[in-house]
Amino acid sequence: MINKISSPTLVLDKEKCMTNIKSMAKKAEGHHLKFRPHFKTHQSLEIADWFKNFPFDGITVSSLKMAEFFANNGWDSITIAFPVNILETDKINILAAKIDLRVLVVSSDTIKYLDAKLDAELGVYIEIDPDYGRSGISYSDKSKLEDLIYTIEESKNLTLFGFYAHAGHSYKSRSKNEILECSTQLIEDLSNLKNKYNFPVCFGDTPSCSSLNYFGEIDEISPGNFVFYDWIQTKIGSCNYDQIAVAMYCPVVAKYPSRNELLIHGGAIHFSKDYDLTPDGKPYFGQIVQYNENGWEKPIDGCYLKSISQEHGIISCNTEFYNRTSVGDLVTILPIHSCLAADLMGEYLTKDGTIIHHLSEKRL
Amino acid sequence: MINKISSPTLVLDKEKCMTNIKSMAKKAEGHHLKFRPHFKTHQSLEIADWFKNFPFDGITVSSLKMAEFFANNGWDSITIAFPVNILETDKINILAAKIDLRVLVVSSDTIKYLDAKLDAELGVYIEIDPDYGRSGISYSDKSKLEDLIYTIEESKNLTLFGFYAHAGHSYKSRSKNEILECSTQLIEDLSNLKNKYNFPVCFGDTPSCSSLNYFGEIDEISPGNFVFYDWIQTKIGSCNYDQIAVAMYCPVVAKYPSRNELLIHGGAIHFSKDYDLTPDGKPYFGQIVQYNENGWEKPIDGCYLKSISQEHGIISCNTEFYNRTSVGDLVTILPIHSCLAADLMGEYLTKDGTIIHHLSEKRL
Repeated sequence: MINKISSPTLVLDKEKCMTNIKSMAKKAEGHHLKFRPHFKTHQSLEIADWFKNFPFDGITVSSLKMAEFFANNGWDSITIAFPVNILETDKINILAAKIDLRVLVVSSDTIKYLDAKLDAELGVYIEIDPDYGRSGISYSDKSKLEDLIYTIEESKNLTLFGFYAHAGHSYKSRSKNEILECSTQLIEDLSNLKNKYNFPVCFGDTPSCSSLNYFGEIDEISPGNFVFYDWIQTKIGSCNYDQIAVAMYCPVVAKYPSRNELLIHGGAIHFSKDYDLTPDGKPYFGQIVQYNENGWEKPIDGCYLKSISQEHGIISCNTEFYNRTSVGDLVTILPIHSCLAADLMGEYLTKDGTIIHHLSEKRL
Repeated sequence: MINKISSPTLVLDKEKCMTNIKSMAKKAEGHHLKFRPHFKTHQSLEIADWFKNFPFDGITVSSLKMAEFFANNGWDSITIAFPVNILETDKINILAAKIDLRVLVVSSDTIKYLDAKLDAELGVYIEIDPDYGRSGISYSDKSKLEDLIYTIEESKNLTLFGFYAHAGHSYKSRSKNEILECSTQLIEDLSNLKNKYNFPVCFGDTPSCSSLNYFGEIDEISPGNFVFYDWIQTKIGSCNYDQIAVAMYCPVVAKYPSRNELLIHGGAIHFSKDYDLTPDGKPYFGQIVQYNENGWEKPIDGCYLKSISQEHGIISCNTEFYNRTSVGDLVTILPIHSCLAADLMGEYLTKDGTIIHHLSEKRL
């Protein structure tokens, strides 16, 4: 596999990925949770197929385009986990006539608009904002909640599937305990909603789904990132480094002995500019790991992707790693955020040398 | 054109783009500079064609893949402005046999390696680091410089085209005067190199090329971003807002009256996570502008893309803009960094409704 790489390449460890899928699917099954995994991370038909070995209720995506892609390839129950975009009403109407399509709603005006325009039946979830401030309505806004429920129930084409929340603030956690603190209130709120209104409740962030052993009244989960995990998830407390299923392989093109740095081909168009902070508060864009013929191993202390521009990356090294690395070698780097790196790269190379395709595969 | 947009779309103002190309080409001509424009920003055959109305010496790209793409489409003199990656030697050999191919070099070991492996003639520039710390050798390291010149001159397959420098530190400027301060030393250093060694000198950052009226002994320029410019270039001092030739159009999907914020479809996979800082030091990811049927106009004070995740964006609004914007409207946003936004989007929609293709066009 290594012999095939001469430019930045996102390598997929199929076994780790399949183990991650199996663990999450089994966890959902063990807690009697419906499993609607989020496919925005991998965006791949091949990887999607690996989920078919386990029980699932449907899938989740982040855009109508992604829903159309998976629907055109046989997936017939899809949640678009995004407040519905009324400019896409015509396309939603076409897709909803073909499959069990579900979207999120946050306003009764939008519900009325959709109901008037649609011919097909559309499933909806009311999105609840778990104090994250991105999207959804407040759990405490009972009058708005009840107005939405009423408007959906009065509609002729919309069916309420329940309440959906994305606990994106769990990404600020830096330990399993912090994740639990973050999730506990949300589970209580969602459980209260279920008990009061008698509709299913769904949530889906990878930190919570990976760490929790108690899901209260939750009915469905839709995590996505867990399929690969990444370096920031080890910091959050969702996984260990040996669960991370993708790594970027980048060629070393120059060495700078005066500052123990390497120049690599690998930059913002490969990794994205998502960053973590070093202990002294400086951003960095990836973690260097050991690799051998079987893939990657443990992180190398003091070796990280210090800065990136469009295609250039600078690796800050410890002396031992600097001395044993030559121009023409590859370095193996765990991306900070695998979802964005996968979206940018548009394909995966497996350890056995096979290319796995991605929805937005680049032409080169 | 607006009627065609229902999801995040990068719109290209063809007239502004052509004016930017014409201005830079005329400037190069006026200063007797060879023009080798950098195509990493637009990565498009159609836009590349617009350069053919003016004198140019060849083009510049940032990767071998991009060089292969343009070479396969008739471009026959290409600089890969990146220290040569010896893992790509076989592909370089093939391409160098077909076209006038040039790469950057920073080490005599690499020069010797290439010379031993290549059959075709390859042009090289010695890369000089203008105290930016990304790539290149120090101007003051005369022994290394002379070793490189000697090694190239002793080689059988390599031809020295001169010295190349990218003044990436000009991006830290926040006025034309700061750009000039930054460039003046580099021009002096490069001019000294030319006078001493009698090889051409080339540089190419957009801030310097846009702002300078004195180029000393410089022979060639290779700017790229100027073709579109972007919001950060207005802050740097390279351009005015009305020269920016691309803007992202994004649908509004929800309104949050308690905080004067809009939720849009438009996130990190559209804009990238490059950011500027607000006056109070907080990152933001794009600037909202007025738009009408002729395209976009001036920036709207107090309205900016405050936060992004994979596909979600939150717009912070002033009250007037908030009140006049509805769910189902489009907002028009100048990206912080157009190179990364263009790379992510993979195509352009012109104001007259035509799609302009990009090298790494997404399949959707």
